[in-house]
Amino acid sequence: MLCVGLDPDPERLPSHLTGAHDLTGAVLAFNWQIIEQTRGAACAYKLNLAFYEALGADGWSVIERTLEHIPSDAVTIADGKRGDIGNSARFYARATFDRLGFDACTVSGYMGRDSIEPFLEYEDRGAFLLIRTSNPGARDLQEGMVDGEPLYLRLARMAAAWNEGQPGTLGFVVGATDVDSLARTRRTLPEIPLLIPGVGVQGGDISRMMEAIGPGGAPILINSSRSIIYASDGRDFAEVAGQAAEALRAQLEAARARD
Amino acid sequence: MLCVGLDPDPERLPSHLTGAHDLTGAVLAFNWQIIEQTRGAACAYKLNLAFYEALGADGWSVIERTLEHIPSDAVTIADGKRGDIGNSARFYARATFDRLGFDACTVSGYMGRDSIEPFLEYEDRGAFLLIRTSNPGARDLQEGMVDGEPLYLRLARMAAAWNEGQPGTLGFVVGATDVDSLARTRRTLPEIPLLIPGVGVQGGDISRMMEAIGPGGAPILINSSRSIIYASDGRDFAEVAGQAAEALRAQLEAARARD
Repeated sequence: MLCVGLDPDPERLPSHLTGAHDLTGAVLAFNWQIIEQTRGAACAYKLNLAFYEALGADGWSVIERTLEHIPSDAVTIADGKRGDIGNSARFYARATFDRLGFDACTVSGYMGRDSIEPFLEYEDRGAFLLIRTSNPGARDLQEGMVDGEPLYLRLARMAAAWNEGQPGTLGFVVGATDVDSLARTRRTLPEIPLLIPGVGVQGGDISRMMEAIGPGGAPILINSSRSIIYASDGRDFAEVAGQAAEALRAQLEAARARD
Repeated sequence: MLCVGLDPDPERLPSHLTGAHDLTGAVLAFNWQIIEQTRGAACAYKLNLAFYEALGADGWSVIERTLEHIPSDAVTIADGKRGDIGNSARFYARATFDRLGFDACTVSGYMGRDSIEPFLEYEDRGAFLLIRTSNPGARDLQEGMVDGEPLYLRLARMAAAWNEGQPGTLGFVVGATDVDSLARTRRTLPEIPLLIPGVGVQGGDISRMMEAIGPGGAPILINSSRSIIYASDGRDFAEVAGQAAEALRAQLEAARARD
């Protein structure tokens, strides 16, 4: 159930790594050691592409070389939140699935059906659509009431319809920070897998989150990034990250079992 | 007023280029020659990042080497439609403005205020927010009525408020394919610059578009990609692109003057 977010911020990397390597090398050493120590607890890894693009030309190869180190039975997610007209969306899907070989990605639905469909046309791949996000600005648009229901729920229902007959898997991104939206989305479309960020630094509560998800339904992935990968900034960063991941995994399992 | 969209689709490049170069080389030769022949007619160039990401690891350097060939007085726009939580959005802004040195970019507002603000904090840079897009799926979300007004207009008004006091320039992306939305956005917020796609292949009509924009107001950029860069697929592709750009420029000027 646990997804570890590999979001390498140059300013938060352990100093013994940035002292011994150039930035690219430090990020790779960081990611590799985090993966090594968390692979027992995590079933998925999510790379937020913003952090890799900010590395410049090296970013792409850092993604590739990070993916090589992720165990083959773990799900890899490109968190890029792309969304463009159909013709361009096809190229984003190609970059994400064919070029980089990710299992899944996140997509943004502001542009509607033709911006999402190219991602759903890939067999054995998944696209997690942003529904109700975990950030402060989420409510600006997502909570707007349209025909008596919040926009996020309307989008969720539309997307579930768009996905019918598609070979790919549709999932939803729903944050842990607003448990009411989480409960409502899950109750409305229990057959859609969820990717849930917002536990940890962003403040989502685990028991309340599990209660909102309820028993049964499609698989869920709970993502945590900063509270795991920056649990320590010393030479023990990877070991401590591994402990934080294992602690969170156990906490999630216990909360899920209670529910 | 004319913005040329550099969206290199490998399958549509002239065969004499793909025969003589590897894909990266062919794309570069294509972009450089298009820029050379259209620079007299265009005041801006927009690179849709999807097409560059689909090139894999070389994509980043193709962007850099394309930008080097764009005249310094032309506005360069990274069309990536990014949108993420504040912490991640800062890294996208860094990649776009600091690393690649674009003058402006496109952003997506589904995640609200904190996903947009990091782009507006850059002095002398611009962020064009997706408001009413030109694709068939645009109406799925954007036309939803929230508190008596369509979502796109609600977002436009919110974003204008978020931009107050920011050093950067906020712009809107509004498609030429729905002139009613274009007119309504312009009438509501005439002081916000517009980036208008949808002329050409997507079918927007120039006279009706100019009428919708009306006289005065903030600067506008009219983008055309495919109808210019793929005007010919022969050895004369760049020359014909130059003629298509000049013809469109003249048509836009004439329509603007009539209005």
